[in-house]
Amino acid sequence: MASEFEIIKKLRAVFPKIGDDAVEFKVSNIPIVSTDAFVMGEHFGDYFTPYDMGYKALSASISDIAACGGIPKYVLVSMGLSSGEMDFINELYRGMQEVANLYKVEIIGGDTTKSSTLFISVTVIGETKRFIGRNGARVGDAICVTGELGSSAAGLLALKNGLVGNRYICSLHLNPKPRVKEGIKIGKYASSMIDISDGLIIDLSHLLEESCVGAEIWKNKIPISKETIKIANKFSLSAQDFAMSGGEDFELLFTIPKDKLKEAQKKVDFTEIGEIIEPRTENRKPRIIDEEGNDIPVAGFDHFNRSPLLSKE
Amino acid sequence: MASEFEIIKKLRAVFPKIGDDAVEFKVSNIPIVSTDAFVMGEHFGDYFTPYDMGYKALSASISDIAACGGIPKYVLVSMGLSSGEMDFINELYRGMQEVANLYKVEIIGGDTTKSSTLFISVTVIGETKRFIGRNGARVGDAICVTGELGSSAAGLLALKNGLVGNRYICSLHLNPKPRVKEGIKIGKYASSMIDISDGLIIDLSHLLEESCVGAEIWKNKIPISKETIKIANKFSLSAQDFAMSGGEDFELLFTIPKDKLKEAQKKVDFTEIGEIIEPRTENRKPRIIDEEGNDIPVAGFDHFNRSPLLSKE
Repeated sequence: MASEFEIIKKLRAVFPKIGDDAVEFKVSNIPIVSTDAFVMGEHFGDYFTPYDMGYKALSASISDIAACGGIPKYVLVSMGLSSGEMDFINELYRGMQEVANLYKVEIIGGDTTKSSTLFISVTVIGETKRFIGRNGARVGDAICVTGELGSSAAGLLALKNGLVGNRYICSLHLNPKPRVKEGIKIGKYASSMIDISDGLIIDLSHLLEESCVGAEIWKNKIPISKETIKIANKFSLSAQDFAMSGGEDFELLFTIPKDKLKEAQKKVDFTEIGEIIEPRTENRKPRIIDEEGNDIPVAGFDHFNRSPLLSKE
Repeated sequence: MASEFEIIKKLRAVFPKIGDDAVEFKVSNIPIVSTDAFVMGEHFGDYFTPYDMGYKALSASISDIAACGGIPKYVLVSMGLSSGEMDFINELYRGMQEVANLYKVEIIGGDTTKSSTLFISVTVIGETKRFIGRNGARVGDAICVTGELGSSAAGLLALKNGLVGNRYICSLHLNPKPRVKEGIKIGKYASSMIDISDGLIIDLSHLLEESCVGAEIWKNKIPISKETIKIANKFSLSAQDFAMSGGEDFELLFTIPKDKLKEAQKKVDFTEIGEIIEPRTENRKPRIIDEEGNDIPVAGFDHFNRSPLLSKE
């Protein structure tokens, strides 16, 4: 097995600043920072290659910056590795570097240690001209999402069942693309924003709780791809459940004052799926309404107490 | 078991910004950042209470900022926990908060996930007026250290052997105090600096390699406490080996041009232990000289290939 210093030496050939004590960085505007941890078995299933692990860890972390309307700039990565095998580490870093190149972020530091459970902890430093938090939603605001929901959950189901032919949907689970460009544009209009990592219902609930408001979601307006519906049908499951509770889509969920909606829609593609209303209950769970105007009960996902809908990884 | 959201909710009572997507922060001067990962069994032995784990993780991370002559300002903590037990988490955070208070740093963000192996990843953001790296040592500079070396290794040995009566020496291993104040003062004079985390020899080797110089260390000048000598004697081991290869003292190791030495000594307590010389070999291992002027062979420590001297934790 390669020694820690050998590994760091090799890593530094690719990432010059791994292994330093601390590094300098520069930011203009408002500096922002976010940190995320990823664990083998918890966030990465067996069907993740080391490349996919690196890719997804960095993508998901960058999404947190996008969720504030920010521009990601710098990344620090600390890893716990169960072996010092350079092939594995090279692939892990190749996945990260791919994302770093795509989003023009620089990997400026990190740490490597031994751990029987593989983990990756990513810190992203970014900047923003206007920080969009979770607490600015107001009654009457439109609730909107970028892209389509439930694709990651559908991809996960395909991967778990060996349906690797469904490459596009699988890639959305393995190699998600955070909405940085969209976030910057939406940031000019949004009253609140969050990225969908735990699922529409759970992430919307966070936003409602912090904004002290309620929400009405029009179930039939939630954007879902044909591929997701195809996978759901194959397993006699509901694609709408995937969209509401699947998580890890890394689409942006945001609220926007109605008078700014049209202008925003000219700049970015997104879908209006509901409206902010007066809060109904203490826990601020959103109200989901079907075509007939009936309330629908929904489930969520939690790393400690898992959702019955999809047992992740 | 408490759910992830319950845990985050409780943590937020203590640390208001845990669980947010990203947070804003402010820095003046040159912003600097560092990240470190700590793993149960690798960095924390069985004799670590959760309080000690939190304390040491944050202390060791702050030390990286001190090593650049910086002032730590903000901390982000991501954790992989094997259980959602609030007693454990409260104690872990109490240790961190103690250090945060002591060094006036603010815990501004973090992430919590499930992991069969407990880990803590800490990112510290700081600032400095003058960034001191590892690459500025010049031939003729004095090599100096703060405090006493080998104490953490002696504390570790005491803890492993149940000698808990040696409280002071044990506390140096469990609850180290990074040299922030000293680092800021030394930063005005030093040509290069590093903190001693892997041991004097290894950390000095890093500094020599990056500065493209060699070193001569006067073995009998290395400061060692009486308590360390007492513990070493008890096990018929060499206290000087502890001092040279033990690691985790989090003292500062720095080089300083000779003409600035006297002025610096008026401001900070430290010990001159050697001199920067022309490089001798390719790997830039320092030359250790005993009282008779003879070279002494030494061992180091590495997380992947462990030192024969002390099998850590």
